[in-house]
Amino acid sequence: MRSHYCADLGEQNIGEMVSLCGWCNTYRDHGGIVFIDLRDRSGLVQLVFDPKDSAEAHKIASEVRDEYVLLAKGKVRARGEGLENPKLKTGKIEVLVESLKIENKSLTPPIAVGDESVGEDVRLKYRYLDLRNPRLQEIFITRSKVAQATRNALSSLGFLEVETPILTKATPEGARDYLVPSRVHHGEFYALPQSPQLFKQLLMISGFDKYFQIAKCFRDEDLRLDRQPEFTQIDVEMSFCTQDDVMSAAEATLKAIFGVCGIAIQTPFEHHTYKEVMESYGSDKPDLRYELPLVEVSDLFAESSNEIFAKIAKDSKNNRIKALCVQKGDTFFTRKTLGEAEEFVRKFGAKGLAYIQIKEEGAKGPLIKFLSEANLKNLIERVGAKVGDIVFFGAGEKKIVWDYMGRLRQKIAQDMGLIDENLYRFLWVVDFPMFERNEDGSVSALHHPFTMPKNLDVEDVEEISSVAYDVVLNGFEIGGGSIRIHKEEIQSRVFKLLGISEEEAKNKFSFLLEALQFGAPPHGGIAFGLDRIIMLLCKANSIRDVIAFPKTQKATCPLTDAPSEASEEQLRELHIKVRETKQ
Amino acid sequence: MRSHYCADLGEQNIGEMVSLCGWCNTYRDHGGIVFIDLRDRSGLVQLVFDPKDSAEAHKIASEVRDEYVLLAKGKVRARGEGLENPKLKTGKIEVLVESLKIENKSLTPPIAVGDESVGEDVRLKYRYLDLRNPRLQEIFITRSKVAQATRNALSSLGFLEVETPILTKATPEGARDYLVPSRVHHGEFYALPQSPQLFKQLLMISGFDKYFQIAKCFRDEDLRLDRQPEFTQIDVEMSFCTQDDVMSAAEATLKAIFGVCGIAIQTPFEHHTYKEVMESYGSDKPDLRYELPLVEVSDLFAESSNEIFAKIAKDSKNNRIKALCVQKGDTFFTRKTLGEAEEFVRKFGAKGLAYIQIKEEGAKGPLIKFLSEANLKNLIERVGAKVGDIVFFGAGEKKIVWDYMGRLRQKIAQDMGLIDENLYRFLWVVDFPMFERNEDGSVSALHHPFTMPKNLDVEDVEEISSVAYDVVLNGFEIGGGSIRIHKEEIQSRVFKLLGISEEEAKNKFSFLLEALQFGAPPHGGIAFGLDRIIMLLCKANSIRDVIAFPKTQKATCPLTDAPSEASEEQLRELHIKVRETKQ
Repeated sequence: MRSHYCADLGEQNIGEMVSLCGWCNTYRDHGGIVFIDLRDRSGLVQLVFDPKDSAEAHKIASEVRDEYVLLAKGKVRARGEGLENPKLKTGKIEVLVESLKIENKSLTPPIAVGDESVGEDVRLKYRYLDLRNPRLQEIFITRSKVAQATRNALSSLGFLEVETPILTKATPEGARDYLVPSRVHHGEFYALPQSPQLFKQLLMISGFDKYFQIAKCFRDEDLRLDRQPEFTQIDVEMSFCTQDDVMSAAEATLKAIFGVCGIAIQTPFEHHTYKEVMESYGSDKPDLRYELPLVEVSDLFAESSNEIFAKIAKDSKNNRIKALCVQKGDTFFTRKTLGEAEEFVRKFGAKGLAYIQIKEEGAKGPLIKFLSEANLKNLIERVGAKVGDIVFFGAGEKKIVWDYMGRLRQKIAQDMGLIDENLYRFLWVVDFPMFERNEDGSVSALHHPFTMPKNLDVEDVEEISSVAYDVVLNGFEIGGGSIRIHKEEIQSRVFKLLGISEEEAKNKFSFLLEALQFGAPPHGGIAFGLDRIIMLLCKANSIRDVIAFPKTQKATCPLTDAPSEASEEQLRELHIKVRETKQ
Repeated sequence: MRSHYCADLGEQNIGEMVSLCGWCNTYRDHGGIVFIDLRDRSGLVQLVFDPKDSAEAHKIASEVRDEYVLLAKGKVRARGEGLENPKLKTGKIEVLVESLKIENKSLTPPIAVGDESVGEDVRLKYRYLDLRNPRLQEIFITRSKVAQATRNALSSLGFLEVETPILTKATPEGARDYLVPSRVHHGEFYALPQSPQLFKQLLMISGFDKYFQIAKCFRDEDLRLDRQPEFTQIDVEMSFCTQDDVMSAAEATLKAIFGVCGIAIQTPFEHHTYKEVMESYGSDKPDLRYELPLVEVSDLFAESSNEIFAKIAKDSKNNRIKALCVQKGDTFFTRKTLGEAEEFVRKFGAKGLAYIQIKEEGAKGPLIKFLSEANLKNLIERVGAKVGDIVFFGAGEKKIVWDYMGRLRQKIAQDMGLIDENLYRFLWVVDFPMFERNEDGSVSALHHPFTMPKNLDVEDVEEISSVAYDVVLNGFEIGGGSIRIHKEEIQSRVFKLLGISEEEAKNKFSFLLEALQFGAPPHGGIAFGLDRIIMLLCKANSIRDVIAFPKTQKATCPLTDAPSEASEEQLRELHIKVRETKQ
């Protein structure tokens, strides 16, 4: 029906007869001549209806309203001098229409296409109109390109795409699993997978050697700005590999993904250990587009006359005193913004926010008096503070200090405009701890229990590290993976350390423990969050911008968002009942 | 860890040091020298361990058992004269191993890799061992290639891959929907989609113009040899298109799919109308690798003295008398096989199976006496029967006759070996009826209720045809689609003809009927069954061969196949109860 997409037309087509299809984006009558901007996936082109040229087309055009579906035939011509529209890709030309057909009408749309000032609820209710927004269309064009680039990159590296099941066996601990009642096995339930982790490990044990999949994953959790109950991950696994082999494949994939969007990225990425980034940036996913490092200064307070700081400084295993030097901080920080900064860190567990201002006349601030002159000098040197800078201090239990100082670092960079939005700063974070100790003293796996530990014989479980790695971009973890355990005896020991009894391990993971005994190869892999990558590539603020039919708390999106009551017959067939506790 | 895949080695590598990883496929000790066939995804290569060359490697090798995971380094050399193995791709060479590491051991495997004589239950229970079967690995390599070829073909035609949701709104009639209790919306349920049909139509209304997806679909039905509760379809939709546009895109996709497997296919495919194929082959998915057409001969029996045939022949709207001439039938059909053929058609509703044998001395058979000489001559000429042929007759209600005569045609072709297994015979079946009348007199949609009807004003609904089309390969429907209704008034009329009240239509399809009023473009599409295509490409007998982790009735496949009891806590959170009717 069409000879060209609208926005593919240009001066090269002048004089040609063209057939176009699309929607009336805007309509205006200017001195008896009708102008319609016709819109399709590619963009806009101006249609002109002059009664002198085609009375019939002009007559039909005058009936057109916003979002009518049109088929137009006409000749491309240059716009008159001074009538060019530099904002439009096709702004140098227009199409003088000879025949027009209204293929379908539209009621007055409740939201103007592309108008993002309308409430999100309305936009989601009329998602099919919202998706006509060129910004959103561009996102889904990017998403499609990225998906193809990913698969082509991995295929060319010898990875096989294998589909893993969506209806899987429920594991009893999966409190966040979506459950699906089975009709065949009465009273039993499938679960939707939180990831294909165990399937891809079985594929490695099956000898597939290299696997990938762009896989739907499910988590029955509350929604957030960046979290949907169904999400998509680029899932990769390989056998007979080292951490470096997985990283190379991952970097090649990211290079292809960003390359297809016109962004050249340098590989290999920097490596930082988990310890390094926690100490220097207070986060295992630091944004390195700006510096602002956290500097350890406990030693300078060990002999301090401030009892609190001195006490904190003494337990260097569990505590930290971190300094954060903000260059030219005095141009930004006022009494008010300093107060806001303190309020901000208090939300994340800080007791307060000490600081030193470096003035022409010397360092100023309540902490000064507790430091010897030598230690103050040492401190200023160590953080590299100059006149005009402000140095903030966080002190206390290390996890809390890392967290709020890392967040403060990020907030200052944002508020002071220190972030170059055009940069893509990738890094690997490596050497994650294998376990973390929970508040109740129990131990859980930081990555997951199938991760290969490095030094399992160390007595302090918190000192056991793992062959796990995350890839971080601009402050977001976009992927993470590990080398997996491929020996049954190691897997059993890890389960034991996690407090999983032999019987429990057998119940939950018997198929894995069994499979590991039949010639499991060494293997490892990685998974990327595709939704997050698209958000970063398209600078989208909400995950709902990168998912065609997202879910919302308010359940306004037709088809997807509003689950329904099941019929009594369906429930009977599934052997379930709805409890009467409905709220 | 590896320098080469096993089966990539050949004479070109003679003299090279190589590093290989894989599994011990077979082990034998021959006069003190150990030979191990090492297996990886690519295939096998022979490792040689000679104590004279490396005593240590030889010692380790002697501990190796089936399915041990090995890392081997050694030098490629030509096999001695007469020792070549022509059955093996790498049969001209072997690797003299200098160092060997047993990376992982294996218990004695309960099934030998590749042994398909073992019961399927056991094979599925140890699916990770079963998947080491080179035949199955080849299938999944093909499947991965096909998926990439599909997406690359459609992307290059301008189709965008868009992911549609897995958790969708349940529609009340969907008795075969899988239901997923929602944790957020108490007592309500999501449904898993039977296809992305409505989403892709909304994407067209959103102006995406061309969409595709390799999509998981779900149907809560009993399993069959060729049916799994979750299956995969290649899903395609486009706007501003005719039936021919969709067919071209479909043919280009199939050309790419078969091309990547080394099978050149000719496009465009033949077109046959639904009426043609039903009349000539008794099936809307005829296998055209062989002829054996059904020939209408009612007219010849209109004046017959056989009352049953004469009566049937009189109602030409509802009845058929079909002749099926089997060339050289006398070489195959004996009293016994004739009896079997009759028994076969009886299973599908035939009252009997009349036939005529063409002997040297003339036609023979009980029907002869009811035909005039002229009509018999006419009959023989019409079906082209020659001496040695057998002509079978089916007479009765047309749907029943089509069905059993179509099946008989297929059975005879199989039994007589008339099928060229190397042929790929594609065809389009077009002009499907829009509706079919059920036994209770009600009307249902033959394709689906969103299909564009051609002649909606015809009084007899069974005479209304639709712009629907199936693509058929070797007797299997591998894809089907239609041009969709894009106007609300037509959609409403179709719902009405289907006996769906205005209120019911509003309840079930309000989002669609509404969306159609806001500028829906003309659109249509097609969906292919990927599992079926892979089965045909790989000549697999069971759908379980083309799905990595299939489901079985007996629930023997770990992880996927065995749904579990949910915990009381989970059920409480989901606000559901298991009924006590558990069987």
